[in-house]
Amino acid sequence: MTRTQFAKRASVEQVEEGRQLAPKFDEHGLLPVVTTDAESGDVLMLGYMNAEALAKSIETGEAHYWSRSRQSLWHKGATSGLTQRIVELRIDDDQDAVWLRVKVAGSGASCHVGYKSCFYRAVPTGRTPSPDLELEFREQEKTFDPEEVYGDAPNPTRL
Amino acid sequence: MTRTQFAKRASVEQVEEGRQLAPKFDEHGLLPVVTTDAESGDVLMLGYMNAEALAKSIETGEAHYWSRSRQSLWHKGATSGLTQRIVELRIDDDQDAVWLRVKVAGSGASCHVGYKSCFYRAVPTGRTPSPDLELEFREQEKTFDPEEVYGDAPNPTRL
Repeated sequence: MTRTQFAKRASVEQVEEGRQLAPKFDEHGLLPVVTTDAESGDVLMLGYMNAEALAKSIETGEAHYWSRSRQSLWHKGATSGLTQRIVELRIDDDQDAVWLRVKVAGSGASCHVGYKSCFYRAVPTGRTPSPDLELEFREQEKTFDPEEVYGDAPNPTRL
Repeated sequence: MTRTQFAKRASVEQVEEGRQLAPKFDEHGLLPVVTTDAESGDVLMLGYMNAEALAKSIETGEAHYWSRSRQSLWHKGATSGLTQRIVELRIDDDQDAVWLRVKVAGSGASCHVGYKSCFYRAVPTGRTPSPDLELEFREQEKTFDPEEVYGDAPNPTRL
């Protein structure tokens, strides 16, 4: 259905230099999506879209992803209220990745752990990594209590 | 070899709330990497790292990726001179994605097509997508001539 909403990939020139949206999905039918806060520029999360999620995002102006843990279309914020309004949607050179600049509703958080950004920890650089390397927290406080918001819903993190 | 440089994934709590770097690579041994310009905040590219590329990036403070088209370790800028010095390296909640904030050498470009960012085109939102939708260019000029820089090297874009 939705694949016909996009152009066919005909040449490298069309894909890189043209004005047609001809996205490339991987072997699972997905492409990675970088989502940044339109105001601060911070990377909030890295998600995935299938053709339907991409079409819905374009059509509605609200971020839709494909949830790999739940294997279903995911209207971000449907449970938590933390929806993401799309300020700008960009596609990359070979059209296999998307960049969303968004404005998040409510507390502005996008991470299920409770932080604003999923990338709340930094890795120190400049020495060979070893198991005793220590991550540094870049956000000091959670903006919401995940148990309050998600209740008994299973944690999406997989080992 | 390099996998032993990282901690073992033992629990969701360790991975999400802890200070150990215990990255999760996908079935191809890769994790996606968002690279942003540390100054402008713009997303420059979306790449991939295997364990070796992650270890090298941490150790040297210069961005290393895994090139999926060449199937080899890729020291970004080795050919073009446009190396990426890592200002900050972050890991996400479930540790299967990396965010690099970088300072790019030379002209500041990161895209093989010649633009600063690989995401040089925007997709208009607010209507159902169809093949006649027109992408909008967000960068007006290329910062370098790809032919001059890469010569006869094969274009990494795959249809």
